[in-house]
Amino acid sequence: MPPLLLPPIDPDSTLPRYRQVYDRLRRAILSSQLAPGQRLPASRPLADTLGVSRQTVICAFEMLLDEGYLVTRRGAGTFVSEALPDTLTQPPEAAAMWTEKDPQPEPTPLFLPQLAGVRHEVRAFRPGIPDLHKFPFDTWARLAGRLTRSLPTKAFGYGDPRGYRPLREALARYLRTARAVRCSADQIIMVGGSQQGLALAARVLLAPGETAWVEDPGYQGAATALRRAGMQLAPIPLDDEGISVEAGQRMAPSARMAAITPSHQFPLGITMSLPRRLQLLQWAREQSAWILEDDYDSEFRYEGRPLASLQGLDEHDRVIYVGTFSKVLFPGLRLGYLVVPPAWVSAFAEAKADEDRQTSFIPQATLHAFIEEGYFSQHLRRMRLHYHARQQRFLALADAHLGPRLRLTPAPAGIHMMGWLPPGFEDRAFAEAAEAVGVTCPPLSIYRHQAPAAPGLVLGYAAYSDAAMRDAFTALQPIFDQHAEGAS
Amino acid sequence: MPPLLLPPIDPDSTLPRYRQVYDRLRRAILSSQLAPGQRLPASRPLADTLGVSRQTVICAFEMLLDEGYLVTRRGAGTFVSEALPDTLTQPPEAAAMWTEKDPQPEPTPLFLPQLAGVRHEVRAFRPGIPDLHKFPFDTWARLAGRLTRSLPTKAFGYGDPRGYRPLREALARYLRTARAVRCSADQIIMVGGSQQGLALAARVLLAPGETAWVEDPGYQGAATALRRAGMQLAPIPLDDEGISVEAGQRMAPSARMAAITPSHQFPLGITMSLPRRLQLLQWAREQSAWILEDDYDSEFRYEGRPLASLQGLDEHDRVIYVGTFSKVLFPGLRLGYLVVPPAWVSAFAEAKADEDRQTSFIPQATLHAFIEEGYFSQHLRRMRLHYHARQQRFLALADAHLGPRLRLTPAPAGIHMMGWLPPGFEDRAFAEAAEAVGVTCPPLSIYRHQAPAAPGLVLGYAAYSDAAMRDAFTALQPIFDQHAEGAS
Repeated sequence: MPPLLLPPIDPDSTLPRYRQVYDRLRRAILSSQLAPGQRLPASRPLADTLGVSRQTVICAFEMLLDEGYLVTRRGAGTFVSEALPDTLTQPPEAAAMWTEKDPQPEPTPLFLPQLAGVRHEVRAFRPGIPDLHKFPFDTWARLAGRLTRSLPTKAFGYGDPRGYRPLREALARYLRTARAVRCSADQIIMVGGSQQGLALAARVLLAPGETAWVEDPGYQGAATALRRAGMQLAPIPLDDEGISVEAGQRMAPSARMAAITPSHQFPLGITMSLPRRLQLLQWAREQSAWILEDDYDSEFRYEGRPLASLQGLDEHDRVIYVGTFSKVLFPGLRLGYLVVPPAWVSAFAEAKADEDRQTSFIPQATLHAFIEEGYFSQHLRRMRLHYHARQQRFLALADAHLGPRLRLTPAPAGIHMMGWLPPGFEDRAFAEAAEAVGVTCPPLSIYRHQAPAAPGLVLGYAAYSDAAMRDAFTALQPIFDQHAEGAS
Repeated sequence: MPPLLLPPIDPDSTLPRYRQVYDRLRRAILSSQLAPGQRLPASRPLADTLGVSRQTVICAFEMLLDEGYLVTRRGAGTFVSEALPDTLTQPPEAAAMWTEKDPQPEPTPLFLPQLAGVRHEVRAFRPGIPDLHKFPFDTWARLAGRLTRSLPTKAFGYGDPRGYRPLREALARYLRTARAVRCSADQIIMVGGSQQGLALAARVLLAPGETAWVEDPGYQGAATALRRAGMQLAPIPLDDEGISVEAGQRMAPSARMAAITPSHQFPLGITMSLPRRLQLLQWAREQSAWILEDDYDSEFRYEGRPLASLQGLDEHDRVIYVGTFSKVLFPGLRLGYLVVPPAWVSAFAEAKADEDRQTSFIPQATLHAFIEEGYFSQHLRRMRLHYHARQQRFLALADAHLGPRLRLTPAPAGIHMMGWLPPGFEDRAFAEAAEAVGVTCPPLSIYRHQAPAAPGLVLGYAAYSDAAMRDAFTALQPIFDQHAEGAS
């Protein structure tokens, strides 16, 4: 066996030696320098080569065994695992890192009904909830620990109110490639989730009393943020191309902003058409109005190519783009971002500083490593397959339990869909009855301002196991029966 | 040697076994079950007792060796270190955890001029900067890693907008004991630093156009937060008991709020007297006005007993108490808190949810463990001694380099002090000249609204080494000479 060549141990590093050995071996495995099934050198010669104690090497082996990178065969030695988890292999490559093409099919979608609910008590079908059981918390913990121990002390002090520069650079690269957003790192303001992004944008761009278009039905969080900033809301109806610019011009001609979800309208799921996007941009240019593009879940697209952002079509700096990591990673992270026009960077940076100085540092630094080391794109790819499979199970189970009484259409994107109730049903009463039997399904009418809407439910499916979905659909059956009597 | 009794390994734990062994041994050392100098059992019998592999035990030993808990003597075995760092011993005790009495004197204040500036580029004497070199980032990383790996998945989802309940409970206990704040965990709203606390309070409690008293001179961050929320500012002069209630009543009788720093006025350092506190509380009650008590650095008190909070004197729920961990731990953490009257809890929780849903979760969970496991009180005790020593060095070096030209008085609290310039000096011009030679010393006049003030500099001393302070004072010498010519 040729000697294993690893980068030498750094005696001045703040990382303990066992962790340095661990990192070097792990990297050798991930880069296939150590192939699956390959036997590792014995601990003593490896220790001699690296100039560390044998116990240091044993400790690194132990960690790698624990994490599944290595296996031992009694009497035969230590080997690289042949069954490396999918998330661990596939090292990031600069060019391939962010492309959407060729997702690796997972062998089988994972449904673990016996585990459901053990560490997770969110009720089906609450929308907007990602499946946290699939998040690689071990990786996150390892990266956070490494960075907390090793980054320069000054990084933990006061910094740029826009956030951690290396993260903003990585994010700008991602947004340019994956979302066709036109931006540099300078234009990105890291915020505590998309809600803070909406609130900041409303306060910075508009004066109290000015009017903003909101989608009807639409996302309550945006309406609340605008209202808190003193805006007048003008709810504008939607058609199947998105928000109606004509209706907006008729109903609120002097509006200074349109707050929209063009990639995947919340809650209806409409993708705004290209002609409508151009029409809205023209309106914004003519009125010197702002478009607040909330791109809350476009990372999850199951069919067709992901649509480019509205921001990427804008030639006149009228769009503020809002994104979040709450759905892609985990909500408790509280990391989102704004992309603002160059002329508005300093106004937003000042407003962010006056609001809370800057966003928490360690989560930003951890996210940066998570992106740069390829975990983000792998997680995205995995979750896209997982959620698509979940959606298919959701549709199949709904059909099996409820048949045509709940009208559902496969959604090309996102982690929720509309379920339409039979004509004559009252969705609020239905949802209240559902809540009483343990099923959460917000009625469409709570997202509605004035526009008439058919009775419907907003149903999340990403976070719920087969068993949880089956139980919930079973619980809904008698409610359909009762309401059918009331409606007929 | 009697067998070492350790709690059994939990086979169902999400913690790897080597980490469980590590935790058990570490706890045995910290609780003195394993005394300094004591020899540890050999790895093989210990492994047998615990039912784990010998390599698991070796790995745990390696980590403890690396962290200084254990030492090896060649041929003799592994021993508990006799020179355990001060921060590691002294396990927390429920009763003693938060008491201020009997700080353990440190052997010698640590000044490491040769290291200064290597990982830390903040210029002397920028105020408000804690010494991050002394923060136990390794401990923080270890706690964060453990919690990220082991807390229930649902904890990482959406939660109470007020923040992580166990942290709020620990904080309520601390505030009751250390600051005589009257509160329960229900009244605490975790925010992204004190600045967000000030901004939220202004938006929740007052309507745009209403008037708030601010201290003159005073903290710019509070003024900015109030102004952003649409308030009119009424700058009120101070005397040596604190903000002048009489002047306030004369100058802005209809004010609805007083934003103050009673424990340690920023920047002058005045501690508000008890009669003045009672007078201000009476004004607030009579006017149905609010007192915004910003207690930004009261953790560091070097003389006398720490003063009780103003909130603790309030019988009529007129005080909003604002605190922060930016100075005590590290600014990039972005964790602060509000204590609000019970009747206002839901209004604040809703405003926080509408602003950014909730504060980042992992930092809160880590802080909770940091408090509960005794690291917080130990860090506080250590930093109090360290900063007091720093202040004494600062005074001695200033005297040696500048003599009576810079008038300084020992400060009983905080991490900055006023340096008074000779009469006739112009502090803004002086500070600009200082900045040009690499010394940051904000002039008092930038904190001043209208009230006349003697020329002075606001000088931070906590974060700067002997060498940095010496260099800075040396650089200031010629500026004194030049300005003395101009002033005379």
